[in-house]
Amino acid sequence: MRLLMFAAAAASLAAAPAMAQDLPSKLAAVRDAALASPIAWDIAESLTTEVGPRTVGSPAMERARDWGLAKLKSLGFENVHAEPFTTAAWSRGAEQALVIAPYPQPLQILGLGDSSPTPPGGLTAPIALFHTYAELLAEPPGALTGKIALVVEKMTRTRDSAGYSAVTRMRSAGPKEAAKRGAVGYLIRSLSTGNTRLPHAGEADAAGIPAAALSTADAELLDRMAARGQPVTVRLDMASSVNPVAPAWNVVGEIRGSEAPDQVIVVGGHLDSWDPGTGAIDDAAGVAITTAAARLAGAQRPRRTIRVVMWGSEEQGGSGRAYAAAHRAEVGDMVVVGESDDGADSIWTLRLPRGSAGHPAMQAFLDAIAPFRIVIDPAPARSGGADTRALMQAGAPVVDFIQDVSRYFDIHHSADDTLDKIDPALLAQNVAVWASFIYATANSDIDFHALGAPAK
Amino acid sequence: MRLLMFAAAAASLAAAPAMAQDLPSKLAAVRDAALASPIAWDIAESLTTEVGPRTVGSPAMERARDWGLAKLKSLGFENVHAEPFTTAAWSRGAEQALVIAPYPQPLQILGLGDSSPTPPGGLTAPIALFHTYAELLAEPPGALTGKIALVVEKMTRTRDSAGYSAVTRMRSAGPKEAAKRGAVGYLIRSLSTGNTRLPHAGEADAAGIPAAALSTADAELLDRMAARGQPVTVRLDMASSVNPVAPAWNVVGEIRGSEAPDQVIVVGGHLDSWDPGTGAIDDAAGVAITTAAARLAGAQRPRRTIRVVMWGSEEQGGSGRAYAAAHRAEVGDMVVVGESDDGADSIWTLRLPRGSAGHPAMQAFLDAIAPFRIVIDPAPARSGGADTRALMQAGAPVVDFIQDVSRYFDIHHSADDTLDKIDPALLAQNVAVWASFIYATANSDIDFHALGAPAK
Repeated sequence: MRLLMFAAAAASLAAAPAMAQDLPSKLAAVRDAALASPIAWDIAESLTTEVGPRTVGSPAMERARDWGLAKLKSLGFENVHAEPFTTAAWSRGAEQALVIAPYPQPLQILGLGDSSPTPPGGLTAPIALFHTYAELLAEPPGALTGKIALVVEKMTRTRDSAGYSAVTRMRSAGPKEAAKRGAVGYLIRSLSTGNTRLPHAGEADAAGIPAAALSTADAELLDRMAARGQPVTVRLDMASSVNPVAPAWNVVGEIRGSEAPDQVIVVGGHLDSWDPGTGAIDDAAGVAITTAAARLAGAQRPRRTIRVVMWGSEEQGGSGRAYAAAHRAEVGDMVVVGESDDGADSIWTLRLPRGSAGHPAMQAFLDAIAPFRIVIDPAPARSGGADTRALMQAGAPVVDFIQDVSRYFDIHHSADDTLDKIDPALLAQNVAVWASFIYATANSDIDFHALGAPAK
Repeated sequence: MRLLMFAAAAASLAAAPAMAQDLPSKLAAVRDAALASPIAWDIAESLTTEVGPRTVGSPAMERARDWGLAKLKSLGFENVHAEPFTTAAWSRGAEQALVIAPYPQPLQILGLGDSSPTPPGGLTAPIALFHTYAELLAEPPGALTGKIALVVEKMTRTRDSAGYSAVTRMRSAGPKEAAKRGAVGYLIRSLSTGNTRLPHAGEADAAGIPAAALSTADAELLDRMAARGQPVTVRLDMASSVNPVAPAWNVVGEIRGSEAPDQVIVVGGHLDSWDPGTGAIDDAAGVAITTAAARLAGAQRPRRTIRVVMWGSEEQGGSGRAYAAAHRAEVGDMVVVGESDDGADSIWTLRLPRGSAGHPAMQAFLDAIAPFRIVIDPAPARSGGADTRALMQAGAPVVDFIQDVSRYFDIHHSADDTLDKIDPALLAQNVAVWASFIYATANSDIDFHALGAPAK
């Protein structure tokens, strides 16, 4: 088996005269340099320490932009600049929640993005508790009139994002569905696999009512209170505001290609974060992984251009669309596009661009990362990145490096998203995979557009 | 070995005619009933759900008192009553902390008990960071003038309380030591073995300056900022107040003895809690363990009286002294005294009352709990309970059941102290040990006063 694989790799190399014959040894060197490099850790440390939380539309986001520009310049990137756009930005104000009756005690909440503020004097109402989101959806119009709807459905821990995907609609669409049925407020158990008493923020569709996430312990507390059979009355005080045209920026740096500078490999993470934590795993890690990988892959000037984009409004949306709109004419020259936005734990599976698995450059890449025992999904990449989806839809080839998120949703979007949650060794595995892929792609003539085109 | 032990036990039983010959089988039945009983879990569930956080001096503490009276009555305890006393009670107000420069971002803090509030307009000052408390103590008077002293020393995880004991003075005495050296404020890394972004509260000696605990992640954040060499300026806004004569209560219930009702076994936990969590492991668990154990040990009326005390001001002090002062005349009739206040994880070692190890009642007790493989410390009990220390000093025999606190300080005094952190199986092991001990003591004529008296 090993011999056969080796023979196939050798045959592939022979069939690709444009690619350096020493690609395997170059890739091994890039991979090993990445595993030993402090660059990614230093970037994550710097962003979380020197900027911290950075929501789109906030003064911290301007500091994050300046940080990104300075960091890329200090790392020797070229053509460093910020590309401005505007987007709607929701901003949290003071928030408080209390059980009023029958058992007064405070609750830990975080308002969801695009939540309405409570009326002056706060909102006090009885809760209508649902153990699953489906149970809420089964209610007829008017069934929740005057109530604060509460869904306490639990999220399942999975290695991929299946556990999260299964419950995201209870956060995103829940406020609207509750409001349709007459609810005056909406609460959910945080989309979390952890059990710390920290709520998890996140975006929801604007529904005209206050909407917030409870910590898992608080959702269980209300469940126990409700199980006693008496009405449970909750008071919410939530301030928030929306700037419909907040300034925002995608921050860009390049390592220009020597032979085909117009052919561009685009990689990045997102620079903005939710406010409760310091945006370490979401997404200082992704910024760090892709920036470090680009730097390491481009240590010697590559054939093609390597571009890093720090997208400026992933959490509340807008940066991916803005970037695709500004770069639509360039999509045909985009060799491949990828985003890292699933934390700092290791890559356990990947999907290559459509039709590329047999290409010598991809074979050399896969050989280089073979020690990581990553599962090669035969399905083509479909863009797991919120900021790369619009580029993909515009025709850019994409690659998906899929991280183990078993622990990610313990801390995702919560105050627990801090630097100490990043494991430097697992972070380095990500950098090694990305750097190897970028190197193989930037120093070959692989054409993912042609490989991925439907057969004639 | 087994035969020898059996022979020794049989000889002991023969030497104790006053003790029921069927004590071993009775104890096994009590132990097994305790392992299967829902009572302790139900008590902890009820107190955390129906009262929640309950600091001495707060309205919630009055609800806790009423809860305790009702719970003891509903469980069939006799002579149920509250014993009032007064104590100084510190009360938290709004608290906020921010890094002002060089890298503005919010910090997560909890004011320490007996902290002073900040002046109107808040306190803004540069920090003086110490990696160990010893480094702060090495500073001369005046060295911290105008500074907020910050100690970021880490706590070590240990199975016993050694890790905690090693750092408690940096919390309790730190504010005074910092103030002596001119500091205008005092911050510590939370005394925590966990890494959630939740600070841990706790008592400190009043020092006339604001004093607070940072979450571990925030302590590390400030350490990283300070390491960059520029002055780090922090702003604190902390409100608090003190009621020097707050009303408080020790809540008491008994199962009266049939033959020697004036001979009293006193067991309990503390009813008050810190405010950020719901006081589940600290100390609904101890209240639940001892109340359930008393109920199960006294299912059939015992020879001696079993008394449960829910002490009303452990966290800020006062309830143990008040109880000892009110019951000084009764100390000679107190058979033994014990407090459960180290969480809900299992008992791994124990110390018997001085001189009692060879007594048949204690041998029967140890035989009953042998399946738990508890380490029998040959040293006599020295009262690990803050509320029983004053009774011990007044002459009451004490017993120490020492729990595994490996996980306890992850959540102790933080918002994470919620019901979901209690493992019902480990809670039940505690109940089984306490119930077996109470049964053996309440149904024998063992005299710990005489056994523990110095040899003539």
